[in-house]
Amino acid sequence: MCSTGGRASAVKCLKKATEEGWTRDQALAYAQEEKLPFVNNPNLRDWVLATVAAKQYKNELPLLSRPLFEETSWTYTYLLACPVTKEALLIDPVDLTVERDLQVVNEMGLKLVGALNTHCHADHVTGSGLLAQKVPGCKSMIAAVSGAKACVFLSPGDRVKFGTRYVEARATPGHTNGCMTFVTDDMKMAFTGDALLIRGCGRTDFQQGNPETMFESIWTQIFSLPHETLVYPGHDYKGRLVSTIGEEKRFNVRLAEKTKEEFVAIMRNLKLAYPKKIDVALPANLVDGVHGS
Amino acid sequence: MCSTGGRASAVKCLKKATEEGWTRDQALAYAQEEKLPFVNNPNLRDWVLATVAAKQYKNELPLLSRPLFEETSWTYTYLLACPVTKEALLIDPVDLTVERDLQVVNEMGLKLVGALNTHCHADHVTGSGLLAQKVPGCKSMIAAVSGAKACVFLSPGDRVKFGTRYVEARATPGHTNGCMTFVTDDMKMAFTGDALLIRGCGRTDFQQGNPETMFESIWTQIFSLPHETLVYPGHDYKGRLVSTIGEEKRFNVRLAEKTKEEFVAIMRNLKLAYPKKIDVALPANLVDGVHGS
Repeated sequence: MCSTGGRASAVKCLKKATEEGWTRDQALAYAQEEKLPFVNNPNLRDWVLATVAAKQYKNELPLLSRPLFEETSWTYTYLLACPVTKEALLIDPVDLTVERDLQVVNEMGLKLVGALNTHCHADHVTGSGLLAQKVPGCKSMIAAVSGAKACVFLSPGDRVKFGTRYVEARATPGHTNGCMTFVTDDMKMAFTGDALLIRGCGRTDFQQGNPETMFESIWTQIFSLPHETLVYPGHDYKGRLVSTIGEEKRFNVRLAEKTKEEFVAIMRNLKLAYPKKIDVALPANLVDGVHGS
Repeated sequence: MCSTGGRASAVKCLKKATEEGWTRDQALAYAQEEKLPFVNNPNLRDWVLATVAAKQYKNELPLLSRPLFEETSWTYTYLLACPVTKEALLIDPVDLTVERDLQVVNEMGLKLVGALNTHCHADHVTGSGLLAQKVPGCKSMIAAVSGAKACVFLSPGDRVKFGTRYVEARATPGHTNGCMTFVTDDMKMAFTGDALLIRGCGRTDFQQGNPETMFESIWTQIFSLPHETLVYPGHDYKGRLVSTIGEEKRFNVRLAEKTKEEFVAIMRNLKLAYPKKIDVALPANLVDGVHGS
């Protein structure tokens, strides 16, 4: 694609969207109808969508969000809620902390409608199946290609709604085949699971791990987001909780200024130990964390 | 004080501030000059100040904030930065994670101007003295009445500036004499240290702990803040990271719907173990965490 034509078409779409007061969906529909070339460039596409979304969501109440931490597997679980309807999602709940999570949900007066997995975890047992059993109306969800059980199977581009808001499921394989990154509708937050981590990334040496795929996923699906987008990873073993796309593009020790070949070489030489909980966690997570169901 | 007169005077001040486009300081100066009775009621005062601050800071770029976690003492450290000047504060840094904290500060392009302690900790050694040694222009700070060493001694009502923004230091003794809660200028965030915790509060059975004082501190200095104000505690042993004033007033198991006498009885009957690290941490923290200095 001609990069000048791409940029020009992005600006054209943005100008039109501003004049017409479009939502991000209206802007995208227009661009697709007019066959504007920027749509095929992830960076330009995300820049246009984020700019339109910033206007669209400007006067909305902020999303309610609560990070939560599970100690034994050092996992971050994220609670997101629509400030208007109080419908809520949990991203990457852990079986051991389901009661804690439900207490937070209930005390905040939220209605849990989804328990999402970024992928079929190898380091802890998911709480999604338990939550679907315990909470009427709550659906467990995971990527269809993960091969794991769930109430709802997600495909790339799917939108998981909670009240007036949604997260978009982006396919970010590389750590496993079924890894997804969940991006909020206003593109202010990305929940990256074990794809992009703070200053690192998930390992690519077990399940269906593949460093080439990981590199492509991160650059086309995650690093295409605006620099300001907050990155909420599945884990951070140094106790950091959040980063931004801009920071990771500059300071991620495996990815910043690295070619695909350099990245693959780094990942092939990590010599990591066999994951401690994988033999328990993986079979459990393939059945949504709920044995015998 | 007549509560009707208090409320009426609060509304009068708010109306005037809105008409005149005042800052929170201008509104407060007017109220003090006119001897408006609401100033003596912490709830009304904080409600007026927060409402004026919401207008004052509406068009500002959001504060940069990063929670950080130290594993061995399960401590939350908070990084706050002015989005315009990039001047930054660290609240409750831990000696063991000073290098991690500095890496985040440096990679975000921030200039650290203060390392604040909510109190003289008994469960970990502060990183404030180390930070003051390592970073030119960074001052360690703690309440004057704590009896601990620091570059700057804080008194109740002091404002710690970072760029165009500040946190207000509120005296919230009860866990120790020198406990402070730091409240951001827009009153959207309160860093409560070991005074108010999520669904609990700091112990009151060692150092200069006193349950009566804790009860007064929380109700007059913290629970006076708006319901929406985010509560960032010094620790949360269940892996929660943030709460709100509204939630704690409703669901804090030690404080919600409890009289002072009930609260004191709860605190006197906790039968907690002797703090593991107190004999190391306390002498170290009395000299700003830097031995021999």
